[in-house]
Amino acid sequence: MAVEQGLEPAQVADALARLRSRNPRVHTITNAVAQGFTANVLLALGAVPSMTIAADEIAQFVSGADALLVNLGTLDEARRTAIPLAMAAASQERRPIVLDPVFVDRSPVRCAYAKELLAGEPTLLRANGFELRALVNSDDPAALQDVAEATTLALTGPEDLVAGHGRSIRLANGHPLLARVTATGCAGGAVLAAFSSVEPDDPVLAAACGLSVFNIAGEIAATRANGPGTLVPELLDALYQLDEHAIATRFNLA
Amino acid sequence: MAVEQGLEPAQVADALARLRSRNPRVHTITNAVAQGFTANVLLALGAVPSMTIAADEIAQFVSGADALLVNLGTLDEARRTAIPLAMAAASQERRPIVLDPVFVDRSPVRCAYAKELLAGEPTLLRANGFELRALVNSDDPAALQDVAEATTLALTGPEDLVAGHGRSIRLANGHPLLARVTATGCAGGAVLAAFSSVEPDDPVLAAACGLSVFNIAGEIAATRANGPGTLVPELLDALYQLDEHAIATRFNLA
Amino acid sequence: MAVEQGLEPAQVADALARLRSRNPRVHTITNAVAQGFTANVLLALGAVPSMTIAADEIAQFVSGADALLVNLGTLDEARRTAIPLAMAAASQERRPIVLDPVFVDRSPVRCAYAKELLAGEPTLLRANGFELRALVNSDDPAALQDVAEATTLALTGPEDLVAGHGRSIRLANGHPLLARVTATGCAGGAVLAAFSSVEPDDPVLAAACGLSVFNIAGEIAATRANGPGTLVPELLDALYQLDEHAIATRFNLA
Repeated sequence: MAVEQGLEPAQVADALARLRSRNPRVHTITNAVAQGFTANVLLALGAVPSMTIAADEIAQFVSGADALLVNLGTLDEARRTAIPLAMAAASQERRPIVLDPVFVDRSPVRCAYAKELLAGEPTLLRANGFELRALVNSDDPAALQDVAEATTLALTGPEDLVAGHGRSIRLANGHPLLARVTATGCAGGAVLAAFSSVEPDDPVLAAACGLSVFNIAGEIAATRANGPGTLVPELLDALYQLDEHAIATRFNLA
Repeated sequence: MAVEQGLEPAQVADALARLRSRNPRVHTITNAVAQGFTANVLLALGAVPSMTIAADEIAQFVSGADALLVNLGTLDEARRTAIPLAMAAASQERRPIVLDPVFVDRSPVRCAYAKELLAGEPTLLRANGFELRALVNSDDPAALQDVAEATTLALTGPEDLVAGHGRSIRLANGHPLLARVTATGCAGGAVLAAFSSVEPDDPVLAAACGLSVFNIAGEIAATRANGPGTLVPELLDALYQLDEHAIATRFNLA
Repeated sequence: MAVEQGLEPAQVADALARLRSRNPRVHTITNAVAQGFTANVLLALGAVPSMTIAADEIAQFVSGADALLVNLGTLDEARRTAIPLAMAAASQERRPIVLDPVFVDRSPVRCAYAKELLAGEPTLLRANGFELRALVNSDDPAALQDVAEATTLALTGPEDLVAGHGRSIRLANGHPLLARVTATGCAGGAVLAAFSSVEPDDPVLAAACGLSVFNIAGEIAATRANGPGTLVPELLDALYQLDEHAIATRFNLA
């Protein structure tokens, strides 16, 4: 049974400071809709994105990267070929892998494919409640451990739950307007990959810090935006400017 | 011969209110350039986009959607495979289909392909004057009825014309700055699909309401923007905020 | 040995004025991440983008265009098929070709491919220092002439160097925040293609004008932005609004 643990805003700020000073490379296999926004989120955060999916190039890119994101939002032939090559390269170099099984609840083909990838025990699984249920046939987040024991779960929703390795953290930051912009969840997965690279030995901490940073930036952006259009530039600016004080003021456990 | 008819701003506001309360799913096959912006336009409007083009997934996505947009701006192998599968699934479920034959005036291959799709009599054809002429070899909008009798035309330009089923409506909203942003036309096609799902029995009304909402939001955005860059976030915010009063104030028949 | 030459801001403003009055068509083969932003940069500048990569359409699009950009950021099968067809069509019509060998320093496969394309002597090569070194195995920009004598180099960095045909120009505009937005370099390559179409007989002048316009707009945008998010709309607005006075005030040779 998972022991619920705390998290201090200073830990979040510290992880962000290390991310900004190391500028980790994040290789990102993501869907066509999310690519531009995800790259901008990583750059605003201080990470360096690469996104090639060419079969004869991807292992080289992943080997030189500090973390890998595999997002299933576009599941075309090129990506189906690239994903196992990328995951093998990341595993060989012991880089963290984040899996984001977008829309597996709407496509049985995609769900079966995601289950195969999950059997490889990626470092983190980012999913919402519908996606998790499709993957583990259960409402209980702990059911993930039956299919991927070593994988930490980042379960997103009005509140977020991070759970793995016998521990869990519940988080309460975020803003509903984020759901009115495409690819905020997908970009959030890339943020988790970036944080995993600076907390390679503690995926629970990495995921909790990544979710907190993205969601606090989202809250700040929502106070400055007039709708989902202005939210996008404000979110990128907020990620870029985010400081210890703003984190300390807004950070919320659930 | 088409009978020119009126349209009341209250009808536009009413269709928008129903769209916002139903949150229709719009499956969107569109070009690579337009995907992100189109998804954000649909979300700002209150619709829910999906965009997969994978052959083994698309029928599932379309069957669960309330409308389908087929935009020909990227005509790669994956989309050429996906489009007939998607249109068959939409027809089977009796969902409205919007066809947007982008740039058929510049590519004979694409024009021939669009004519084939038109023979299947999609619910709506969205085209500008160049595209329509390439498709029907005529300057007369009524020539569309010779090749696709059941298809309603949404002819865009400085003024817009909606015509089908013996009726027509001329509309005069919009702003020239919209043409300085990529994919505004493509995203407008997705808006037509969303409105078609809440007016399934009256494609003329659906198209007129969709064009009016998008173009009125564009006018409001243009008053707030300093150029084509700030127009994008302002347009999304304007779509999100658009209310009955703004529609009543700005709505214009030609 | 290259003779270093000057450039007057009035020449830059004059080239921009001609671009805006001619509205050149720029066919752009670019990476999936950069497509939307690049199209918006071209439109804000006054050019007209097209981006198809379909093998049976691309020659038609390129033949009708005034310049071609080949950016290697996404090197999938479709683009590997499309690129030679596009370059052949552009050569036949004597249209300027800009090559942007993104990330060749990180992928040997891509570097070999870029060298093949370079042997065809494109009008302009846009590269940063890492990419140039990977291509010519040397720190000396003049080494490009050994592999592609007729190709003008636009070497970007904190300062930019344009060199070719025995002449060179050093430029000092730009802003570090541009590096925190994805695809600014890629979009800059499209700007070079647009300027090449209005200065077809002087690629050194074309490249120097294009770099200056993009970088001056970037500086103006940076003064108005609060971070990399608001930089994007401000950059597009600044390109759209850029006038002779702003060019004269900000233009800087290195």
